[in-house]
Amino acid sequence: MMSKLSHYKELVDNFINELAQIKRFPPIFQEALFYTPKSGGKRIRAMLVMCAADMFGADETKSLHIASAIELMHAYSLIHDDLPVMDNDDFRRGKPANHKVYGEDLALLVGDGLNTYTFNVIADAPIDDARKVKIVKWLSNNAGIGGMVVGQVVDVLSSRDRLKGHSHKKLVNFIHKHKTAKLIQASVVCGAICGNPDDVQLDRLAKYGLYAGVAFQIIDDYLDVVGDEEKLGKKKVDEINNTLTYPKVYGLKRSYDIAQKLKDMAILQIKDIKGSKELIDIAKLIVERDR
Amino acid sequence: MMSKLSHYKELVDNFINELAQIKRFPPIFQEALFYTPKSGGKRIRAMLVMCAADMFGADETKSLHIASAIELMHAYSLIHDDLPVMDNDDFRRGKPANHKVYGEDLALLVGDGLNTYTFNVIADAPIDDARKVKIVKWLSNNAGIGGMVVGQVVDVLSSRDRLKGHSHKKLVNFIHKHKTAKLIQASVVCGAICGNPDDVQLDRLAKYGLYAGVAFQIIDDYLDVVGDEEKLGKKKVDEINNTLTYPKVYGLKRSYDIAQKLKDMAILQIKDIKGSKELIDIAKLIVERDR
Repeated sequence: MMSKLSHYKELVDNFINELAQIKRFPPIFQEALFYTPKSGGKRIRAMLVMCAADMFGADETKSLHIASAIELMHAYSLIHDDLPVMDNDDFRRGKPANHKVYGEDLALLVGDGLNTYTFNVIADAPIDDARKVKIVKWLSNNAGIGGMVVGQVVDVLSSRDRLKGHSHKKLVNFIHKHKTAKLIQASVVCGAICGNPDDVQLDRLAKYGLYAGVAFQIIDDYLDVVGDEEKLGKKKVDEINNTLTYPKVYGLKRSYDIAQKLKDMAILQIKDIKGSKELIDIAKLIVERDR
Repeated sequence: MMSKLSHYKELVDNFINELAQIKRFPPIFQEALFYTPKSGGKRIRAMLVMCAADMFGADETKSLHIASAIELMHAYSLIHDDLPVMDNDDFRRGKPANHKVYGEDLALLVGDGLNTYTFNVIADAPIDDARKVKIVKWLSNNAGIGGMVVGQVVDVLSSRDRLKGHSHKKLVNFIHKHKTAKLIQASVVCGAICGNPDDVQLDRLAKYGLYAGVAFQIIDDYLDVVGDEEKLGKKKVDEINNTLTYPKVYGLKRSYDIAQKLKDMAILQIKDIKGSKELIDIAKLIVERDR
């Protein structure tokens, strides 16, 4: 199993490295543009795309573009999240954040560029137009104002006491569902769309993505409390930023239990679909990782 | 003629007003998201989309989504351009800039959201999938790292003396072509794609868009020098920001002449295509306007 996931990760790393080779003026822009996408990471979204595609009969040549595109989208969100006006995080994956290397101005524009470029990579994918349009529709909703962006909005506003009258439980659930889980959901769904899922299967995959996505964020925050800084490769900025997290709202033990429960719910959605072994493994990996 | 353009503007204003009515949590986000798209402007990009569509047999119900989507893309670029880390402009169209009303954090996210939402609106347009994919491909290049974004990168870097060894003429041409003209070009091309242009016609429209787009930016900078602040509705921030402009590089008189020349070159590309009257009129309007 791990070798298949490692293989997908390697394909995506190589694909992004190739995009990074395309000559662009000015050279500093070309460098800044791919600094974050190339800086590793687990490529969990890409793996979800490619496993889901494989499940429904689309081989890796078809899903690779989509997997890489979603990693570019994810990279833009990290770059903007780290900006001083957002989470003000100087480090990402143990390296200086994009704006610490290239300046806030260039980092902002590089994020903008990657956001838009995502759709260019999708438009160029070797799949038919109907599939591309479905993928654009899902991703532009889930990574945008119907998902990731509004999640970050509520995160930022609530941490700055600009959202009154809502319970912390409601807010932290909204934030995790939108900021993290919707992009995870789009990853599995867009991967599946590369192949031939039926509507019921797509709906089950969407639920799997949402549950696994929330579990992913809970474990992230959990590790942020119990893990050491070196392992996570970033400072514990949640405390400084007054960010709402599951450990803060539900306590450490209960948060871990909720993540386990969500993992089980995610697996339950897909375990009867043929070829779901990898997605089940990824759901387990999400809650069992130590970084 | 004017009534047709006014009609298009009204359709786009109404379409965007309808999008702004969709209930979103939190309400401040819904408001901030459409503050800039609703704040008027000439809607010249939308008019270009709809006139080009009309030229090639696509009626306004088909082009309206695309026209509105491109105005959302334009609005995101204005919001991000005005941020303190970019041009630091407090006013836009005579009103406080988005970040002056909602804060830099929300303005950054609203810009991100509009960028992504543009592709959602395109995916929902009442045209076939092949056309949608072509439009996504053009727009994601021309509004992104192959156009608007890299234009702003070079603008910002050159104004901050971070790009050495290039002539001012080379830089100002690169900036205008990419930052402004490429989105104007995408507008006419994407409009035409709604209908049935042949490859030669599409190529001519693309050239028209590039020439008219550069002329548009030259006149903008020209008016910034000769016009008064009230008319343009913004402070003369180019001087403060050390921005490269045609008037600065070529002088005021020569800049105006170059814009006229570009207008003629734009018109020459399309004048033999049936139904090009409106696009010819817009090219004239671009260089003859006083704001």
